Amino acid sequence: MRDLPSPDADAAAATAARNDRLTKPPGSLGRLEETAVWMASWQGRHPPRASDVFCMVFAGNHGVTARGVSAFPADVTEQMVANFAAGGAGINQLARLLDARLEVVPLSLERPTGDISREPAMTAAETCDAFRKGFETVQKADIALIGDMGIGNTTVAAALGAALFGGDGADWAGPGTGLDQEGVDHKAAVIDRALERHRRQPADSLETLASLGGREIAAMAGAILACRLNRTPVILDGFVNCAAASVLHCLDARALDHCVAGHVSAEPAAGRFLDHLGKKPLLDLGMRLGEGSGAACAALVVRAAVALHDGMATFDEAGVSGKRDDP
Amino acid sequence: MRDLPSPDADAAAATAARNDRLTKPPGSLGRLEETAVWMASWQGRHPPRASDVFCMVFAGNHGVTARGVSAFPADVTEQMVANFAAGGAGINQLARLLDARLEVVPLSLERPTGDISREPAMTAAETCDAFRKGFETVQKADIALIGDMGIGNTTVAAALGAALFGGDGADWAGPGTGLDQEGVDHKAAVIDRALERHRRQPADSLETLASLGGREIAAMAGAILACRLNRTPVILDGFVNCAAASVLHCLDARALDHCVAGHVSAEPAAGRFLDHLGKKPLLDLGMRLGEGSGAACAALVVRAAVALHDGMATFDEAGVSGKRDDP
Repeated sequence: MRDLPSPDADAAAATAARNDRLTKPPGSLGRLEETAVWMASWQGRHPPRASDVFCMVFAGNHGVTARGVSAFPADVTEQMVANFAAGGAGINQLARLLDARLEVVPLSLERPTGDISREPAMTAAETCDAFRKGFETVQKADIALIGDMGIGNTTVAAALGAALFGGDGADWAGPGTGLDQEGVDHKAAVIDRALERHRRQPADSLETLASLGGREIAAMAGAILACRLNRTPVILDGFVNCAAASVLHCLDARALDHCVAGHVSAEPAAGRFLDHLGKKPLLDLGMRLGEGSGAACAALVVRAAVALHDGMATFDEAGVSGKRDDP
Repeated sequence: MRDLPSPDADAAAATAARNDRLTKPPGSLGRLEETAVWMASWQGRHPPRASDVFCMVFAGNHGVTARGVSAFPADVTEQMVANFAAGGAGINQLARLLDARLEVVPLSLERPTGDISREPAMTAAETCDAFRKGFETVQKADIALIGDMGIGNTTVAAALGAALFGGDGADWAGPGTGLDQEGVDHKAAVIDRALERHRRQPADSLETLASLGGREIAAMAGAILACRLNRTPVILDGFVNCAAASVLHCLDARALDHCVAGHVSAEPAAGRFLDHLGKKPLLDLGMRLGEGSGAACAALVVRAAVALHDGMATFDEAGVSGKRDDP
């Protein structure tokens, strides 16, 4: 992809320089210091800000649920969208804690995508529509969080992982919302059927998205890209969000430089996505809820990083002596 | 120790039961679900609360700094106490973010403890005074955070680790505020001298605290114990805080059941403490600042856990279908 914004080297340098003047041993805030630099470099300003958090949740339905790949019935996608609207879901509580704007975007829930074990999930036009919907949902903010809801979507995310990075169903399938081992084995077999069908039509990663993905995954990819063009840093969520991010990564290895991995999901192959993306997660709390919930928890830490960077006194301001071996 | 309060089984059971009725796959909030149960069990109430956070920072000076064990001069302890009072330190920013009460307690900074490589750090009376000061600082709260400031205190914490759990200076010494490898080797040798002196007088863990510890470490131990008696859950901070906690652990293996490890410090032996204490950290962000800063970041996550538990709708309330294989 051409014309992707680059990190702002001046803002990064100003942040790194201030990190070293703050009243603490150099580097002693660890990843919080790195996070402040990263935030500044993408916002293009020093000091960085983290007050205005914009959270999007994209919801989609999946034809592959007819193959019995989820522990929950497909109706739950729509029921959860109502729960988001009523303020009762996990992401609602975290958005409230963050004082974040929350936008829930259901994507043609009445028309599930094709059953990927038998046919492509979406046409090219449907894929573009969903991608554009995600792109257009993005609003300017200090931080963006992008979450998903979709019964069956860890199956399509696993299929995307295998198609984009290699491996088979067993490498990428996990319990999702709570399958037992027999269920995971069945899910892996369904994914293998999808991969077999898909491999008969070699494709670039956008065609792979149409073939094996889902509307909420396409929308998340669009939203991540729009955030890049906006210079809004993105905190990635878990397994399904990483599948969406991977589509962009395979188009351009720099496409996710404005994204930090908020957490590593408990879904077994989540770390496999992060390894391919070259991202080290901020949190590892055994979460596997989706909805952007892991990213929202990480946003608390990102906000702490920015508050520390902005509010701490420097050695000079506080009259605190520096290291003994400093000049 | 007799008469230590136990976890409230009813509050824990009520929290676990509600966890399973909330609109999410069972267990999908991972450690956040465990954290809600743990908070309830120690507060003795369901739902648990996490709004009122009380943060204490104990400061002490250490005679062993005369041996050149720190990258910073000993004056910095007192200068940082002034920085805490002025609101310019790291913990001030995090306390503000948490809307926490912050109490900074300098402990006889004008009288550093004895140089542990040559003499006991404190008399029994001094140790008791500091322990009592910590105990009396505690106020009732939903969560307590206990931090430290004291140039040289990673040296005494390392000596305590070796004396309480075995190993020598090289096993427990690390860069602290920023020593190079030569400095770490020297620090390890100083710790070995302290251990050699100390081993000539076999001691229980309170005598070990007097021999090798420091006032802020004794005070932190007293504060942790007072929180237990108050039924206030404690989030442990990093390396020095864990040394203080270890003194209690060696007196009674149940003494830290009301404590969660907030993070694992970047100090190399921090994980060694946590292994001995049987604690898995909530966060691993490469922090090594002290002041309670790692615990304060973890408090953000604990608050998220409680907000999720309290605010999420149940399946019945939201009209969301449960797992397919449920009755």
